[in-house]
Parts: sequence; C-alpha cells; structure tokens
Amino acid sequence: MESLATSLKQSAPSELKNDRLLRALLRQPVEITPVWLMRQAGRYLPEYRATRAKAGDFMSLCRNADLACQVTLQPLERFDLDAAILFSDILTIPDAMGLGLYFEEGEGPRFRKTLTTERDVEALPATDSRRDLDYVMTAVRTIYSALGGTVPLIGFSGSPWTLATYMVEGGSSREFIKVKQWLYDQPEVLHLLLDKLTLSVIDYLNAQIEAGAQAVQIFDTWGGVLTDVAYREFSLAYMERIVKGLTPKARGREVPVILFTKGGGQWLEAMADTGCTAIGLDWTTNIGNARHRVGQDVALQGNMDPALLRASPASIDQEVQRILADYGSGSGHVFNLGHGITPDINPDQVRVFVDAVHKHSEKCHHLVS
Amino acid sequence: MESLATSLKQSAPSELKNDRLLRALLRQPVEITPVWLMRQAGRYLPEYRATRAKAGDFMSLCRNADLACQVTLQPLERFDLDAAILFSDILTIPDAMGLGLYFEEGEGPRFRKTLTTERDVEALPATDSRRDLDYVMTAVRTIYSALGGTVPLIGFSGSPWTLATYMVEGGSSREFIKVKQWLYDQPEVLHLLLDKLTLSVIDYLNAQIEAGAQAVQIFDTWGGVLTDVAYREFSLAYMERIVKGLTPKARGREVPVILFTKGGGQWLEAMADTGCTAIGLDWTTNIGNARHRVGQDVALQGNMDPALLRASPASIDQEVQRILADYGSGSGHVFNLGHGITPDINPDQVRVFVDAVHKHSEKCHHLVS
Repeated sequence: MESLATSLKQSAPSELKNDRLLRALLRQPVEITPVWLMRQAGRYLPEYRATRAKAGDFMSLCRNADLACQVTLQPLERFDLDAAILFSDILTIPDAMGLGLYFEEGEGPRFRKTLTTERDVEALPATDSRRDLDYVMTAVRTIYSALGGTVPLIGFSGSPWTLATYMVEGGSSREFIKVKQWLYDQPEVLHLLLDKLTLSVIDYLNAQIEAGAQAVQIFDTWGGVLTDVAYREFSLAYMERIVKGLTPKARGREVPVILFTKGGGQWLEAMADTGCTAIGLDWTTNIGNARHRVGQDVALQGNMDPALLRASPASIDQEVQRILADYGSGSGHVFNLGHGITPDINPDQVRVFVDAVHKHSEKCHHLVS
Repeated sequence: MESLATSLKQSAPSELKNDRLLRALLRQPVEITPVWLMRQAGRYLPEYRATRAKAGDFMSLCRNADLACQVTLQPLERFDLDAAILFSDILTIPDAMGLGLYFEEGEGPRFRKTLTTERDVEALPATDSRRDLDYVMTAVRTIYSALGGTVPLIGFSGSPWTLATYMVEGGSSREFIKVKQWLYDQPEVLHLLLDKLTLSVIDYLNAQIEAGAQAVQIFDTWGGVLTDVAYREFSLAYMERIVKGLTPKARGREVPVILFTKGGGQWLEAMADTGCTAIGLDWTTNIGNARHRVGQDVALQGNMDPALLRASPASIDQEVQRILADYGSGSGHVFNLGHGITPDINPDQVRVFVDAVHKHSEKCHHLVS
C-alpha cells in the first residue's frame, strides 16, 4: 500500500506529459494517433543486444530491474513512441509456479517440468505476485520512475489459455497435440489449470498496476488455434474473468485493458462483450470493418503486417495511410503492428513507421488544441 | 477429345452410385451428410506407407498412375467415404514449369530453383497440362475408371497465391519474407507470376475435369497470412478468375468448385462472391455462423478440428454432433476436417469420425426416400 500511495503522489493525471495512448484507448479526443510496437524492446535493436549480452541469458535480463528498465527505454530514445511496455516474458507466471522457464538459443521458451497429469495441475501452487514475482514489480517501479511521466507504461500478461499451452506442451507448439487432448478428453483438468492461472494473472496484473502500469494488455497468442466454441469456453471466458477482476483505476486514472487474440478476427463481438477497453487486431482483420462491428464499444489497436517493415519506406508510408483511412476519423485507434516486430528488422524502418503514423494521422483528428 | 467422349459414355449422371457429395455441394437434397477428409490418402494408413515404400520417393508415387490410383482408393476400402480425391501434390504446376520439386524427409516440399527476379518470372513457361502434366491426367483417368461410378472423384490444385509462396520462398515458410517483399514493393512482378499461374491452374483443372474429376477444390493454404486488402487482390481475385474459367459441366453434370482458404473465416462473403459452389472452412469458423452469412449462396465444407482425431471416440462423436447441429437441417453441408489429417492418427479414429457423420446426420435430412 505504501508504494501505491507513493505512486499516487508521484503522478497525478495531469503529470503525464503524453497521455494520448490512454486517451485513445478510452476513445477520448487526441490530436494524433498514438503508436507503439509489440516487442518494441527487442533483438532488432543493437543496444538491446548489447544489454542482453551483459545480462547473460534472457531470464537474467528480465530479473535485473535496472537492465530491464534500460531495454524498456531504449526504443523510446530512438523513436517517437507513445508508450513504453514492460520488458518481461509472458511465461513468468508458470515459471513462478515452479516449471523452470529457460530459453534455448533460437528455440524459443522451454520448461524443465511440464504438466502431464491431473495431479500435476492440482499440485501447482497459487502465486502471490508481490512475493513470487517481485522482480517483475521491481522492474515496473523502476521503469515507471525512470519514465518520469513522459509516456504511459503498459503492463502485460499471457492469457490463461496461452500459458496453459506452453505448460502442457513444454514449449512452443505447432499442433498443440497434448493440450488439445486435454481440451477434448479431460476438459475438467484443463479448466482446473485455467482457473488457477486466471487467479494468478489477476493478481499479477493488479500488482503491475499498483507498481506503476497505466494500461495492461493480455496476450492471447494461441487463442486463434481453437474452434469458435472452444475459444469462448477455454480462452475468452477466462480473459473475461480477468477483465472483471482488474483494478479499474490507479493514480486517479482509469486503467485500460487491451485484449489481443492472434487469429481472433472472427470473435471481435465476443471479445468486446468481456468489458475490455480495447481489442488488439492482428494484420488479417480489416480495421475499418472491425470498427464497424465493435467500434461503438471498444477502441482498436493495430494492425500493420509486420512484414511491411522489410518493405521500402514508401510502401510503409502507403500502408500506414491505408490503415488510417480504413479506421477513419475520430479517436479510438492505437496504431501498432499486427504482431511483434522480428529481430531481422532494420531500426530505421521503425522510425519510418512511427513517424508516418504521427504525420498522416493529424487529419484524422479535428481538434482545436 | 476422345477421352472426354469416352468418359461421357462411361458415366451418365445416373451411373454414379453414390452422388451425395455432388448433391450436397449443389445444395440439393441428400439423405445423409456426405463426408471425406482432406489428405485422406496418406501416411496415417499403413497400406499407404507400404505403397509409398514400393514407389520410392513421393513424386515417383504421384507419377505412377497405378500406384497413385492404389493409394487414392485405399481409404475408400477402409471407410464409408463419399468421395475419392486424386492423390497428387499441390506443387505439380511449379514443378512442370521447371522449378524441380522434391521432398526432403520430414522437411516438406522444396524446389531446386526458386524465383528471385522479375526475369525469372518472365522466363517461366506456360504449362499445357495435357503435355506437361500428362502423368496427373493419366492418374485421374485411371482412378475414375477404377472407381467405376461408386463415388465421385475430386480433382484439385493449389491457388495461385499459395503456389507463388512456395516458388518464391523455395519451400514451406513461416513468415513469407520474400514473397511479401514482392507483394509490398514489387506488386507488378507478383501479379505477373499470379497471372501465369492462374492460366496454368485453369488449364490444369479443366484437364482434370475432362479426364474424370467430378468436382474440384482449390487449396489456398496460405491465403490466411495476408491482410484483408492483400487477400482480395493477390489471392481471391485470381481464384475468382479460375472459378469463372472452369468447365461448368462434364459428363452431363455440373462440376462443383470448392474454395478452401485456411484462415479465411473473415472473408466468406467475398469468397462466395466469386461464384464458387462451396467454401471449405477451417476449424476456427463456426459453421452455423458461416451458413447464416453465406449459406444462401454456397454450400459449406468442414470443419472438425483435426486434433479431435487424437481424442476419444466419445469426444469425436460429440463434436460431430455439435457441428451437425450448428449447421442445422437441410442440404448444403459436406462434412470434412478443417485441415488435412496428420500422419500420427490411428485409422480406427477415422472410422469413428466417418461413421458418426453418417449416423447422426440422418436427422438433419427429412427425406422420404
């Protein structure tokens, strides 16, 4: 409570110098469309690779608040971004539950222990984020303080379904063989797991909000591999519980919640019904069409194809204009990629992208400032 | 022309013993819902593996009409399927254009030559299927004859966009880096390639129809990685040209055309507008919702999650009933998986699936027979 009180004093609403991300998420007027990138602090930046080399492995970087803060701020020093996003991993909760997260070079995340039986699920401990994930909260506080009210800080978590896929498969997956066998043959075991994860995610995001996160995003990276019926039962229902369980306000401001289901373009109406503030769109969904469907209820975030960052500056510029025109005029749009930026991208291309959003979006917002 | 004349004599409409696939595709009454499986002739069958071992590599199997016929018929001997599908590969056209298709064990398809410049695309020869893909037509004739009118034979091709991805990337891809660079920076080169492929696909499918194919499916395996705008311009527009370029009738019957875009659930209305007979759905789309959207214009094919084939017989049975109920009563539904069956599946599970479709679908069709 002390840290929350301190935070509240540190940052009254008026103190945020650039709050257009928060305003756009709440569909309040903005002068230009805010922009950030999923995975904006990452391997495509040489300065990230240098800090990462200092830290050793990926999890050591996440666990070191000063270095995590450093890499979080790196993209903001280069580009005119409207938000910072906590540098961390979506799999910190399963790690805190004792599964032993590690990263094999070029292989993606792996767990030393995986869940194979109902007993494994029953034995999973509940996490207390302030105790078990204290290193994340220290990072959030450090970053929040270092930002000094320049732009808002976005906190995040993986969705329960997405976390469950890694915990059951043991890492990344293509066909989700084991977790889908649970889903179809032992749904009660999967529900037990999702229930535990949901409680942990609520606690985790609320702790991030208390520590300084001014908006949060739930990454449902693998919701799109489910049938419509299974998505609603095994992914969306739990995200809805999370949305309803989050601290609605902190430091005098509403804390927007963004749901991002990759491959979720068919389910926007159901996602909006959760009560979330905004929906993140991958690049396959037409944002104008999405606005028509759910724009009266939620803001929309996205959604340029990340592959555009390998194209010419002129092509990037043109696609940014196309997406802005598709969304149309008025607030409620946070520009982003439709998925995370990849390590092979030239940072100069990111500048072209960010600047194009700001430059071309002026005409979408008719404000007398 | 001789072979067409012969075919016409061999099979008047009345001679097809089980034509419920064709009737369902044309939304004409059927007594039970027809069913087949994408990749039904394949590695999950021990008898397929035996024939394949005899043939040597995969392309030798495709090129040997007798063996291709043998593996096409294998699943029909085991299961009560309502259609046969030509055993071949989607990449036969690029191979016939001189790219040198081969398969590395466990690696998927590869090309000896890939397209890297505009000149490579200009140099691509047009294919004449009756000359350059004669082995496929021989296989179609052989299979058609061996089927003896028991069930219809489905011919197929990859979509131009899907073929282009392999020709530019050199094989399977995750991020489609090179072909998307063409798409965004040199769209005219990609259009030239797609145009050439479209002419070849039209010729190829018409040759299959002439040789005995009674329905055709266009596999747009990778349309779902595109933005909405790019999908319409670079994939769907070419599929529409194909639909309009196909022989509408053969042997006295309409030849239905099925479009299958994996990940295409957001674009069903646009797909239906091509004039296709049916749309194949992957498992992420709710078939009841899809019927509501486009069921007045097209039939629907699909769409059980292939992962169900690893679940218990009771789970398969329940999911089949769920999908049948979602579609509702009346014709216009061809049951299938939402994607191809994988090699690890126990064939007994396929029997459970096929039989469940027939058993439970009786009540969807109120016919006095």
